Amino acid sequence: MISLSDIRSAATVIAPHVVRTPLLPFGSCWLKPESLQPIGAFKLRGALNALARLENRSRGVVAYSSGNHAQAVAYAARLHGVPAAIVMPSNTPAVKIEATRALGAEVFIVGITERVERAEALVAERGAALIPPFDHPDVIAGQGTIGLEILEDLPSVDAVVVPMSGGGLISGVATAVKALRPDVRVIGAEPALAADVADSLRAGELVRWDPVDRARTVADALRDEPSTLTWEHISKLVDDVITVTEDEILAAVADLARRARLVAEPSGAVSVAAQAKLGSGVAIVSGGNVDPALLARVLGA
Amino acid sequence: MISLSDIRSAATVIAPHVVRTPLLPFGSCWLKPESLQPIGAFKLRGALNALARLENRSRGVVAYSSGNHAQAVAYAARLHGVPAAIVMPSNTPAVKIEATRALGAEVFIVGITERVERAEALVAERGAALIPPFDHPDVIAGQGTIGLEILEDLPSVDAVVVPMSGGGLISGVATAVKALRPDVRVIGAEPALAADVADSLRAGELVRWDPVDRARTVADALRDEPSTLTWEHISKLVDDVITVTEDEILAAVADLARRARLVAEPSGAVSVAAQAKLGSGVAIVSGGNVDPALLARVLGA
Repeated sequence: MISLSDIRSAATVIAPHVVRTPLLPFGSCWLKPESLQPIGAFKLRGALNALARLENRSRGVVAYSSGNHAQAVAYAARLHGVPAAIVMPSNTPAVKIEATRALGAEVFIVGITERVERAEALVAERGAALIPPFDHPDVIAGQGTIGLEILEDLPSVDAVVVPMSGGGLISGVATAVKALRPDVRVIGAEPALAADVADSLRAGELVRWDPVDRARTVADALRDEPSTLTWEHISKLVDDVITVTEDEILAAVADLARRARLVAEPSGAVSVAAQAKLGSGVAIVSGGNVDPALLARVLGA
Repeated sequence: MISLSDIRSAATVIAPHVVRTPLLPFGSCWLKPESLQPIGAFKLRGALNALARLENRSRGVVAYSSGNHAQAVAYAARLHGVPAAIVMPSNTPAVKIEATRALGAEVFIVGITERVERAEALVAERGAALIPPFDHPDVIAGQGTIGLEILEDLPSVDAVVVPMSGGGLISGVATAVKALRPDVRVIGAEPALAADVADSLRAGELVRWDPVDRARTVADALRDEPSTLTWEHISKLVDDVITVTEDEILAAVADLARRARLVAEPSGAVSVAAQAKLGSGVAIVSGGNVDPALLARVLGA
């Protein structure tokens, strides 16, 4: 498991390249808008930390991702002047594919189940280094810097609500929060259509859902499942999970635009939908790369 | 004219109640998203400073405003536990009227040319204190705190681009910027349909446009004109004005949602439309209270 000191080191490494996002008041609650990072998502933190710590990156980096991690690795690679090859599933929103190409990365589109295999093949062919989306201590430590910032800005915080999928974000945030303030609750937020972690915490062991089932939710960045590493963090450190419906997710996207003036993607608003049921705490708005047509539709409704 | 020390005092007074907005990278430029303030606009800064400095506020406060100043005064009054009466013109977007009422203020809707008269009548009837939208040193000093923050966060800044109407925001920002860094250019941004300040700077004196003409622009918060006080600041401190078309304003609203994940109102995006012509600098995104239907329309286009 990663430690508080890993997260503190990551904070120093990434500080020059990330936005120090503010906490925004939101009714009786607070928002941490990671949607305001340069690539529109928290993923930049983990990717920057992992890439900075790679010993051999001269032959480039490879990543597989449904979108935001792709842009994060592409952005970090460009910053460090190394080539990036990104494998993306064919159901990725066009806006995320375009944004990744615009950052100078080479993009490979594959079927949703073939991502890892293709990425590993690219690593073997090129001698490049793989930066996984969540299953790596340096990636988790980078995401954990968000927890440090929340505690620093709001010492009176009672709960942190975190979108959950592969579990990299909540593993890092929970490590930081529980190390410094074990009394603060760390709550995962999941779409009911991809609630494998809620099931797992109830069962006391990692319960796997069929990837095709997990792919039903509009929250396209939350279709992954934890790894052994992230499950270890989640099972030890997460207090509870709140699941939300597709309608609640889209209502949260509309609410964020109207009341907080934030553009959030459905995956980034899942925590806000869960926070609405809790009535307090800081919700991490993890990303803002929504399809403009979807945002227009929820605003027009 | 106000001084740097007025602005520094204001910064101390308002700090506990405003969001310390970050600078966001935006291509080769930067954004200062004041749309993230609790009421969705920079106006909170000036209203909080003015209200905190009022000697007699026990009988409440009165304001006239096309929207954002209304919400700012209502919010500041609620914070200090005093009643607020707000006079709003009949062409104010519904979203702003509702938001003002939701903050506990009493709202009076009048014709666009009757605002000041009605506000003054309320002051006389109630013994309340008027907080003008821009024509007051304490209001200007509050808005100037944005200038301090920009210089602190980006010492290498070359230009600051500011939406301009009554001139409170640019007067405060220009005072802070020119006092500390006379080499940094301060550039006003105006809709071409309400370009009275551009005309005035060319003429070397305050040129007045018919209010009906100024009311044509979609940038509904930029339909005012400078007072003697703000014109004095503008004429001495502002380097240049860039005017933008209605199409350019709406394109900037769409661009901010897509590329910066910010919900901006047309008035708040005027600076970004101007910045696009300049290619550098910090644009102050002054507000985010856009009609959701308008945002949906520009995103769907």
